[in-house]
Amino acid sequence: MGGLTAPQDVKNQSALGDLKTLELDSVTFVLFGATGDLAKRKIYPALYNLFLDEKMPHTFSIVGLGRRDWSDHTFQAHVEKSLQIFSRRSINDSYKMEEFLRVCHYSSLDVKDKKGYDKLLDVIQNQEKEMSIPENRLFYLSVSPEFIDVITSNIKESGLGSSKGWKRLIIEKPFGHDLKSAQVLNEKLSQAFEEKEIYRIDHYLGKPMVQNLEAIESANPVFQALWSNQYISNVQITASETVGVEQRASYYDQTGAIRDMVQNHLLQMLMMTAMHLPKQESVKDVRQEKVRVMESLRPLQKEDVVSNVVRGQYDHGEIYGEPVVGYKEEPEIRDSSTNDTFVSARVLIEDSFWSGVPFYIRTGKRMKEKTTRIVIEFKNPLNELYIDKSEGTSPNLLMIEVSPNSGYSLQINSKNPLNGNKLEPVAINFSSNQENVPEAYELLLYDALRGDPTFFAHWKEVELSWKWVQPILEAFEENNLPLHRYRAGSMGPEAANQLLEMDGFKWR
Amino acid sequence: MGGLTAPQDVKNQSALGDLKTLELDSVTFVLFGATGDLAKRKIYPALYNLFLDEKMPHTFSIVGLGRRDWSDHTFQAHVEKSLQIFSRRSINDSYKMEEFLRVCHYSSLDVKDKKGYDKLLDVIQNQEKEMSIPENRLFYLSVSPEFIDVITSNIKESGLGSSKGWKRLIIEKPFGHDLKSAQVLNEKLSQAFEEKEIYRIDHYLGKPMVQNLEAIESANPVFQALWSNQYISNVQITASETVGVEQRASYYDQTGAIRDMVQNHLLQMLMMTAMHLPKQESVKDVRQEKVRVMESLRPLQKEDVVSNVVRGQYDHGEIYGEPVVGYKEEPEIRDSSTNDTFVSARVLIEDSFWSGVPFYIRTGKRMKEKTTRIVIEFKNPLNELYIDKSEGTSPNLLMIEVSPNSGYSLQINSKNPLNGNKLEPVAINFSSNQENVPEAYELLLYDALRGDPTFFAHWKEVELSWKWVQPILEAFEENNLPLHRYRAGSMGPEAANQLLEMDGFKWR
Repeated sequence: MGGLTAPQDVKNQSALGDLKTLELDSVTFVLFGATGDLAKRKIYPALYNLFLDEKMPHTFSIVGLGRRDWSDHTFQAHVEKSLQIFSRRSINDSYKMEEFLRVCHYSSLDVKDKKGYDKLLDVIQNQEKEMSIPENRLFYLSVSPEFIDVITSNIKESGLGSSKGWKRLIIEKPFGHDLKSAQVLNEKLSQAFEEKEIYRIDHYLGKPMVQNLEAIESANPVFQALWSNQYISNVQITASETVGVEQRASYYDQTGAIRDMVQNHLLQMLMMTAMHLPKQESVKDVRQEKVRVMESLRPLQKEDVVSNVVRGQYDHGEIYGEPVVGYKEEPEIRDSSTNDTFVSARVLIEDSFWSGVPFYIRTGKRMKEKTTRIVIEFKNPLNELYIDKSEGTSPNLLMIEVSPNSGYSLQINSKNPLNGNKLEPVAINFSSNQENVPEAYELLLYDALRGDPTFFAHWKEVELSWKWVQPILEAFEENNLPLHRYRAGSMGPEAANQLLEMDGFKWR
Repeated sequence: MGGLTAPQDVKNQSALGDLKTLELDSVTFVLFGATGDLAKRKIYPALYNLFLDEKMPHTFSIVGLGRRDWSDHTFQAHVEKSLQIFSRRSINDSYKMEEFLRVCHYSSLDVKDKKGYDKLLDVIQNQEKEMSIPENRLFYLSVSPEFIDVITSNIKESGLGSSKGWKRLIIEKPFGHDLKSAQVLNEKLSQAFEEKEIYRIDHYLGKPMVQNLEAIESANPVFQALWSNQYISNVQITASETVGVEQRASYYDQTGAIRDMVQNHLLQMLMMTAMHLPKQESVKDVRQEKVRVMESLRPLQKEDVVSNVVRGQYDHGEIYGEPVVGYKEEPEIRDSSTNDTFVSARVLIEDSFWSGVPFYIRTGKRMKEKTTRIVIEFKNPLNELYIDKSEGTSPNLLMIEVSPNSGYSLQINSKNPLNGNKLEPVAINFSSNQENVPEAYELLLYDALRGDPTFFAHWKEVELSWKWVQPILEAFEENNLPLHRYRAGSMGPEAANQLLEMDGFKWR
């Protein structure tokens, strides 16, 4: 499919797609942090592409908020420019574009100034009257975490959240810095919003292949039959990056891979992989089942961390043939930093499905390749004939590539007639066309607009993740385990390989 | 891979391949029917390509036999020409070619003339002495079936078969015309050869993907787990041709699809698909297990044939856009012919693995496409969420393409992010490179040379196949069921679709 911008194409797309569009409630989309980076790169492009797909409500307005003193016109020019650069579809339908920009408004707001919210309420109410939008308000907090508390409490106190329609809150990571701070933050949020009104974005849950995990297990009898310790020997979840700390050095140096990736994205992928949905599932089931998985994780005691977790920090090396500096040579990084730029862990789920099946996770910066993938390794029966013939068959593997491409690959053993009919592993593949696949933010914003929280993190998931991670944070803090250096451009420290070798496995 | 004719390439191929070559016993390859069509198209090319792959014994000679009065030189020119036309590898290594032709000799023989065999014995013994070949003799009977009896009995009586080395007999289909004639033929054969010396060729058993069925089930835990009535709803085996009766009209009009395809090839593929090998299998196990499958077939009574078997005959129509005549308009076909050019049947296996899983087979001439494939359809659990979402998910399918390409395809349900994340069936594929894959005859002749009968039909398999087919033959004979006309270029008569629809299935 090429660019879907001509109106007739948009119609086709919609006819093929979800026809529930008309049911979407009219809404005011209130965006805190409207001049920021995430808004520019992800949020405006997502809203605009939903609009082209006729997946926005029939009537909606966007109210951008920021400290800067912008006019509506300046804001609209800013949005238009962001679409020109970041929209996945080319911007060549000026009629559609004008229609979209016409509903974009801007108000300047100092988020700590209570009076500003009263003014904002006026602006929104006038807008609602003018456009006949019922008082449905979606608040998107694309702001630094320290402002979440003050914004939600001001939303409540100003009456912005006391509308006759519904209200929803979308927030971004990080959700706390450890178990305690997350609990405190949630306590504050819950004074202004009910849990069912809170949509915590984990953008990995917006990736098509992660959403597809539900279907792989539930809609395919061949995988459903195999999805347990009876047939699976171990599961490997990798999210590796080639970049270093980039612009976020001082933030990252306080955060590390454990908070930046493991507590949220990796554990979310683990939940999505390990869940077993009942036959007649519902939205509630998916999140309940994810919570059940987290409740079944074997807790790590602080003294277990050293044997189940590998901590690493990148040294200088090469990425795609270019030399790069080590972590401590990066600007703004403390010389004494013991921050983790790599974490690998063995996670055990103590339920009847997964008992005895280690889930290995790993993530790091400055690694050899940028990839997110889940590998399911099946048990290898001791078929002595084949071991004799070919010195062991390879285990069957189901590889799920989440990014950069979306695809599956099933590795099976097959006779090769070109090689004396010897058994050799072959991969049977499916890769979906990546062109014009909706971005994670489109899928997630659409779900939030229609009130479907399936692919947002429930507080219980977040809390249980922090609980599992907490002993690791403390062990890191207390330097209870080695900090392995790894060469930039490698797949992490050797200790991460040994973690699997101890159990008789290896990274696939 | 390109043409593998240069000596160093041949060596590479051999190094990659089976290294048992050196163990092959020296042999005299005695070919009855050396001037015939099969020899020209299949046997010489197979022997020559084995020779290039260093898969022939270090020392061997080929003795071609025919009625024509040819010299060695004429025969060698005939073989060379057949290789130029039919070898899968191009013939550009004149040194290798000469080496191969040098061991090709010819004797004229009237197969009914006993004295001719005495002369043949002399020729072979002289040859054996000259080349220091122990008295290992492989007799290949590429002759009309009515000569099999007289040839084997003359081999015995002349002493050709009473050598100090081993003797083996390769015979081609048809093996009898019905149960009785097959038993009579086997009785006669067994006076001259022991069962373990008889290699009955079913060239479908030489196709790489059919041989691979063993590995799919035995070397892959993911399929092994699924290979029974617990997960499989039905199995569909199709062998369709686009050609009509061609040059074989009068023979075919006496034979029909039931004898030409069903009794041998289709039932062999059914056995290979349905077998369950023990973990530590052996050659004996494969054939024993195939016999066990045949013994478990629910016998058809003559009165059951009408509800389990569909008989068809092609009418005029179009193949690849070209008009073709109906069966009765073909030259040499009787006007009153009720011969079956299409057969489809429901086969039930009454064992603990397959009880309740129908195996549907179909084969025909002048059909829409030339293809041989096996489709395993998995049970579809009633997942109401998904039925609601997408009006029913498609069943998971494992499609095994035997020809014209070799490959697997697993159809699973996956969310399509381009279509509102609706579930859609997608195929994950593996196709092997078809270039320079050894032909069925190469694989089979190599096995016969090394004395491995795994992929040859054992007498018990043949007898049980005839036993199962016999009531169908009789029902056809007595016209107990309709003869459905089908349009040339279609997938057979509508009744073949109804056969599955009755059970709630359809051809995939």
